[in-house]
Amino acid sequence: MEDPLAQLCLDDVKAAAARIAGDIVRTPCLLSRTLSDITGAEVYVKFENLQFTASFKERGALNKLLTLSEAERQAGVIAMSAGNHAQAVAYHARRLGIPSTIVMPAATPNVKVRQTEELGAQVILHGDMLEETAAQARTLREQQGLTFVHPYDDALIMAGQGTVALEMLEDHPDLEVLLVPIGGGGLIGGCAVAARGCRPDIRIVGVETELYPAAYQALHGQPTKCGGQTIAEGIAVKDTGPAALAIMRELVDDLLVVPETDIERAVDLYVTVEKTVAEGAGAASLAALLCQGEAFRGRRVGLVLSGGNIDSRLLASILMRALVRGGRITRLRIDIDDRPGVLANVARLIAEGRGNILDVHHQRMFLDVPAKQADLEIVVETRDRAHVSDILTRLRDSGYQVRELLDLSTR
Amino acid sequence: MEDPLAQLCLDDVKAAAARIAGDIVRTPCLLSRTLSDITGAEVYVKFENLQFTASFKERGALNKLLTLSEAERQAGVIAMSAGNHAQAVAYHARRLGIPSTIVMPAATPNVKVRQTEELGAQVILHGDMLEETAAQARTLREQQGLTFVHPYDDALIMAGQGTVALEMLEDHPDLEVLLVPIGGGGLIGGCAVAARGCRPDIRIVGVETELYPAAYQALHGQPTKCGGQTIAEGIAVKDTGPAALAIMRELVDDLLVVPETDIERAVDLYVTVEKTVAEGAGAASLAALLCQGEAFRGRRVGLVLSGGNIDSRLLASILMRALVRGGRITRLRIDIDDRPGVLANVARLIAEGRGNILDVHHQRMFLDVPAKQADLEIVVETRDRAHVSDILTRLRDSGYQVRELLDLSTR
Repeated sequence: MEDPLAQLCLDDVKAAAARIAGDIVRTPCLLSRTLSDITGAEVYVKFENLQFTASFKERGALNKLLTLSEAERQAGVIAMSAGNHAQAVAYHARRLGIPSTIVMPAATPNVKVRQTEELGAQVILHGDMLEETAAQARTLREQQGLTFVHPYDDALIMAGQGTVALEMLEDHPDLEVLLVPIGGGGLIGGCAVAARGCRPDIRIVGVETELYPAAYQALHGQPTKCGGQTIAEGIAVKDTGPAALAIMRELVDDLLVVPETDIERAVDLYVTVEKTVAEGAGAASLAALLCQGEAFRGRRVGLVLSGGNIDSRLLASILMRALVRGGRITRLRIDIDDRPGVLANVARLIAEGRGNILDVHHQRMFLDVPAKQADLEIVVETRDRAHVSDILTRLRDSGYQVRELLDLSTR
Repeated sequence: MEDPLAQLCLDDVKAAAARIAGDIVRTPCLLSRTLSDITGAEVYVKFENLQFTASFKERGALNKLLTLSEAERQAGVIAMSAGNHAQAVAYHARRLGIPSTIVMPAATPNVKVRQTEELGAQVILHGDMLEETAAQARTLREQQGLTFVHPYDDALIMAGQGTVALEMLEDHPDLEVLLVPIGGGGLIGGCAVAARGCRPDIRIVGVETELYPAAYQALHGQPTKCGGQTIAEGIAVKDTGPAALAIMRELVDDLLVVPETDIERAVDLYVTVEKTVAEGAGAASLAALLCQGEAFRGRRVGLVLSGGNIDSRLLASILMRALVRGGRITRLRIDIDDRPGVLANVARLIAEGRGNILDVHHQRMFLDVPAKQADLEIVVETRDRAHVSDILTRLRDSGYQVRELLDLSTR
């Protein structure tokens, strides 16, 4: 392999910036006072979720498309993605009048197929395993003479993604640290080259989810061991790009692997504090700051909020789980005698403690409950953990056996 | 009463803008291509949810605070609010070293009390009815010689809020319509004076929720009839300010009253399309565009997204209800024979139709079910309405009696 750094330098990123200017949103990079208070760092957020298709992927895709020859443009492009890269390619290809074909795994949710089709691409569903989908994309490329737009392992793609860091340092030249999520490595590869090129002393830190620490494993000589249901789908990548890995080895100061629970907390904080919507991958850099804050205390830290495409059901679930974690919603199991008036009494005690009952379940059938007793399960809206304790005490003081049931880690 | 327009003119708003500059976020006002596609108008959104306390209220509060005399500053200020105005006053009073007292109704959720205390105010909880709370605020003002910072009925407050419109027209001088939510009227009063002052031909339209159409009723000579649980708490105001009413009578072209369901849709669209968090009141202007789009087709419309403080549980619920409305989640009731294997068969049919089962309930106890039958209730994640129909057909073709249960209007 050629030296990837010989293929990608600051000037390439600057050239990409000039090429894509005007057709990409020049997203803001803003100080967040509240996130700074929470984390102890001076936190600047780069809002790449404000791109038209809500992720940074447009930068690389557009940079690649703009360098095609006239013949290549006419033949069209092909990409493989069910996510942000698909939408980025589809959107800019249509703008430029370039036919685009996107291959997605057969099981892709229809909503993603439709979104990509609406942006002007022809979508082909093929293969149950990613490898089959990729093989189909290769076949189509060869049959139809299309240009393949790789999601990350391509110097032009990386140069485009690097414009994120360029803009961050234009807006805030005194940033000391950049925290960048790592999927295939295109974003961090481009950002590392751009940032180190402008500012030799800047610290560049990559972030992966604990379920897909592929770059960490590769750079530490460990076998690749990735998998599981992550909320950060955008960085659930097993095969980091070779060029990106070589750049990381050279330029990236540290790789952090963050727990899924911290990514959840970060998505919730973006909504509740910043009033902005981050997908899991987009929130990973904030998650790193939440779980390893000591390392960044007092430093000027730039977070790449890389995208905002999150399923509404997942987002709703994350918001509710955060309320449970914060003691704003709790679930109580109470052993009660199976006779009239007991529920009324329990409900009265909770009301006196100013808890708001959201849901009630009775069960009296299973054998862990004596025949003349029942299990009462009540979901209560509370103010905080102290309020939960207060309500527990009220119920116990009136003679009830109560347990708090928590479905999830309460860290 | 003096003529309120004699008390408030464009120069007052310009003076406010100069006074508060630098200590208020100069929020962006951006074209939304997707909202434009959806509504048929050319839609520009003013992101007041990006203020530090996430609402426009800071503008008026700060303008008022900056005009106090040295003696008034030392004595301190008092306000009555459990919402955005409370946080706005608390935050800027502390910044300026002015002691602040905020009176809230006794039943205010603790989270709002704590947020306001954390911003530096002394919070006093008093009164079950708003009138008692107000009386307490007046008493404290007189006893302690405090200056009352009214949430809207004050020329300085209105002048501050008017800077929203000033900035919108600075950024986009060719806006043809402004859509502004109406609570007490401070925002629309200031914006109307500012916008009409800059652009005599601009159309100014106010928006109220159907549950609190107080300004509409007042201006149409109808008795005030407001009430109910609105998701737009920030504009749930029965007493529009007299000065604001006079300004509206003079300068506002139209008042629109929007259904709660459209406010819900608007909150959901802001999250899913714009990746931003709007509270109900903040989404009301988009709701007006959704339900009365014809009137604005092809026009350049500026929407004031006035604030982003929405409870996580409410937001989660709105997101989930939007999925139900869009056919992305459905609830089926199936009459089944009470014998082994039936659930397995139903689950298989749904799986073959690529529906994802989220929840299952059996009930066999109540008398609308024959003794040897059971009711099966299944919540299924689906792609869209067509997918729901497909799954219904599969189940019916296999001989099941199925009904779709929808908790909410499916408009």
